[in-house]
Amino acid sequence: MRFADLLSQEEVLRIHEASIEILEVVGMLVRNEGARKIFAAHGCRVNSEHSLVRIPREVVEKYRRLFVPEFTFTGRDPDFDRTLPHDRPVIVTGSSAPNIIDRKSGVQRRATSSDIADIAFLINELRGFDIFSISTLADDAPKDQFSLSRFYPALKNCLKPVRSNTPHMKDLMDVLELGFIIAGGEEAYREHPLINHHYCPVVSPLTMDIESTEAVTYLTKEKLPVYGTIVPNAGITSPMTLVGSLALGNAEFLALGVMQQMIQPETPLIYAVLSTVADMRTGAYVPGAIETGIMQMAHSQMAHYYNVPSGGYIGLTNAHVNDAQSGYETGMNTTAALLAGTDLFNMGGLLGSLMTFDFAKAVIDDEIAMMLKRLIRGVEYSEVDLALDLIGEIGPGGNYMESTHTIEHMRSSSFFPDVATRDMRETWTAAGRKDAAARALHRAQEILTKDNPAIFSLDTDEQIRSRFKGLVSGDAGWQD
Amino acid sequence: MRFADLLSQEEVLRIHEASIEILEVVGMLVRNEGARKIFAAHGCRVNSEHSLVRIPREVVEKYRRLFVPEFTFTGRDPDFDRTLPHDRPVIVTGSSAPNIIDRKSGVQRRATSSDIADIAFLINELRGFDIFSISTLADDAPKDQFSLSRFYPALKNCLKPVRSNTPHMKDLMDVLELGFIIAGGEEAYREHPLINHHYCPVVSPLTMDIESTEAVTYLTKEKLPVYGTIVPNAGITSPMTLVGSLALGNAEFLALGVMQQMIQPETPLIYAVLSTVADMRTGAYVPGAIETGIMQMAHSQMAHYYNVPSGGYIGLTNAHVNDAQSGYETGMNTTAALLAGTDLFNMGGLLGSLMTFDFAKAVIDDEIAMMLKRLIRGVEYSEVDLALDLIGEIGPGGNYMESTHTIEHMRSSSFFPDVATRDMRETWTAAGRKDAAARALHRAQEILTKDNPAIFSLDTDEQIRSRFKGLVSGDAGWQD
Repeated sequence: MRFADLLSQEEVLRIHEASIEILEVVGMLVRNEGARKIFAAHGCRVNSEHSLVRIPREVVEKYRRLFVPEFTFTGRDPDFDRTLPHDRPVIVTGSSAPNIIDRKSGVQRRATSSDIADIAFLINELRGFDIFSISTLADDAPKDQFSLSRFYPALKNCLKPVRSNTPHMKDLMDVLELGFIIAGGEEAYREHPLINHHYCPVVSPLTMDIESTEAVTYLTKEKLPVYGTIVPNAGITSPMTLVGSLALGNAEFLALGVMQQMIQPETPLIYAVLSTVADMRTGAYVPGAIETGIMQMAHSQMAHYYNVPSGGYIGLTNAHVNDAQSGYETGMNTTAALLAGTDLFNMGGLLGSLMTFDFAKAVIDDEIAMMLKRLIRGVEYSEVDLALDLIGEIGPGGNYMESTHTIEHMRSSSFFPDVATRDMRETWTAAGRKDAAARALHRAQEILTKDNPAIFSLDTDEQIRSRFKGLVSGDAGWQD
Repeated sequence: MRFADLLSQEEVLRIHEASIEILEVVGMLVRNEGARKIFAAHGCRVNSEHSLVRIPREVVEKYRRLFVPEFTFTGRDPDFDRTLPHDRPVIVTGSSAPNIIDRKSGVQRRATSSDIADIAFLINELRGFDIFSISTLADDAPKDQFSLSRFYPALKNCLKPVRSNTPHMKDLMDVLELGFIIAGGEEAYREHPLINHHYCPVVSPLTMDIESTEAVTYLTKEKLPVYGTIVPNAGITSPMTLVGSLALGNAEFLALGVMQQMIQPETPLIYAVLSTVADMRTGAYVPGAIETGIMQMAHSQMAHYYNVPSGGYIGLTNAHVNDAQSGYETGMNTTAALLAGTDLFNMGGLLGSLMTFDFAKAVIDDEIAMMLKRLIRGVEYSEVDLALDLIGEIGPGGNYMESTHTIEHMRSSSFFPDVATRDMRETWTAAGRKDAAARALHRAQEILTKDNPAIFSLDTDEQIRSRFKGLVSGDAGWQD
């Protein structure tokens, strides 16, 4: 497939040039002292009093040439490892929602660690999803186990690569230790890490924070998988014009990417964004807007220019229920991103932008993910598939339904959905007039009332629980 | 924008070659005698006994080189005229559903002429829609007024171009006469026709019917606007492989297009498809499937090769309610088509594939149409929009919310939706937890309880009603 491009090649070069100018003239406010030292040691002009880092053109150009074109996510089961861009589209759940729609009452409440266990199990079983980015927070987390209460139920119930963040270094160290135990030791873990780290160290406009930046610098140095997402919000934290916001976000990506190369040359990274345009009628945050898709397309084109994998939080919705809005917002922006060559999609399971997880939404998004995976295959061409002999044989006015060719190709030509109804209205009415959300929730229940194949061995679990006293149970509980 | 391409240039040429081979070797079953005569008079080999027409390569090549790149839809008010591809995406309602979801009871029933009047009024007011293809049939049509009972309420309530079909020549002549009266005479009508004709004369595989083919040949000869849609359904009426179905459908498009050029050189046409892949688990007809979008993309690429406008029934859904499925099926396939350079979208207002019209769906599709119209604009580039001075002025850690630049660009940068909620969950809950369908139906009601600016003058209406005795009232009736 040749991807759609929104920008001319000249415009791409101009955005790059503008980003260079921003980094060189305006600079970045770098609140993390260690990061400032890294920039200073690699040719940048650092004003310590104002924590301002200006990155000269030649420094950006030198280090961005070290970017590598691939990024691999690794999981408990190496069969689920995924490499960008080769395995695109790689589909990731949306992450870190504070709330969940209770599956029994349908009412929103705070999410807990056992919700995370359920969600991890579900994502393990839904083949549209490749990576489990831990979907919610855990309101029941014991003191000092904020992150363990998320990573433990996630890793315990999912063989696919798990991705998430941590609020500070202490939590990061705990989570890594959890990983070492699961992997059977630090060496084995470093050989094949099963946690994939993700942060938002850049706070637009042009600022790097303290804690997330600390985590990124540490993990980069340790050669553990980590990448950052850039989140400019046009009209509030970046210019209202799309091209202005694009240049700013692109400069921010370069600052972070270049810093990682200074720490460790050829560190894999992802050009990942959640680049939005605010609804200035109210100042509302609107990741479901079509402008989010447009910005993702443009950022993907810049990623192609730098020859790095492209990804982002794309496919979020502002809807609070699984209505038509939830469907078209997720569907349109992911389709636009796919056709612009986005490799990685953070898209599954959230309603109300990033505020709440919903089981039915996750199952619906799995189906959208499968449609994207069908779409990327496009029209597969071969002389055999062209079937000119068959067209002659069936002739004008004939029927292809019973030909061997039809039976041989019916499964490879089409994606067969589980959630979408294809019944006639009469049949659908007789079956109870269920909408997509009701059918999706039923499918979640079918999956989550089976045995979970991902659960830890007793031995591993005992080691973990004896190391981290008072840990949440980490067990899926749909049967309750 | 550079559009996405699914096929390599080599594959495009091979599809064209394969189509030539199909027309030359396999041929078309042409049931209409007049059409057979046209083919025979222009170098084709016609077997009258079997109604088989074989079109030699050089004949296809000669006449397809007469294809012109534009097609104009004309309406009662010339301000609403739309020309492909210049005005793309041109958004058309879905058409000819037998049923409607009753707006009061929510129950499906047969549609009537007064439903058509209501729908025409609604489409006149929704700015996402460019063309009103008459959405339903009229169950209350008097004997011998099947088509008048559709066109009269449509034209009476809508200033935008009206598009539809007729079942046979008698109805076509009545409808044209209706048009002449509205235009103030035949001459004025021919100068600026206000009906745009559409047929499906090709019945896959490789067959041309009697009645629709008759209408197309007549209208082409009369230089009145007409085009056809090709509707192969892979696995049933065309090969199960996408590339095989593409070659067959492309051959069918060429047969029809070439015939029109034989009748009238440089007749404007549209390469329009409703090219589907059947769900062979049940044989179900599934225009909502992602394969419909893939086929539309591929056909658009072929249309670009022939340098003709590209269109189709794209954005239909198999859903029976305005649920997530209805949203993602319409949203994904229209987005895919847009990014592959489709110019014309038959997409609005239908549920259950082509079976039933729904007011809420029409309003939701209007919003999707507006999102597509925003998407095609992409990232508008200018040095002013790049706003480098502003980025320097606001600096790291600043805020763009109150800058003049933000206020100046907020309306041009973003599309502001009416249907999509952007409220926080608490606000949305307090406002009654309305889903997109409820909000959309409310918007339809707001529009349809105002005065209709499109209604005919009394004089015109009297002329029409005295010419066609017993005509339906043609009045919108939401107030009832």
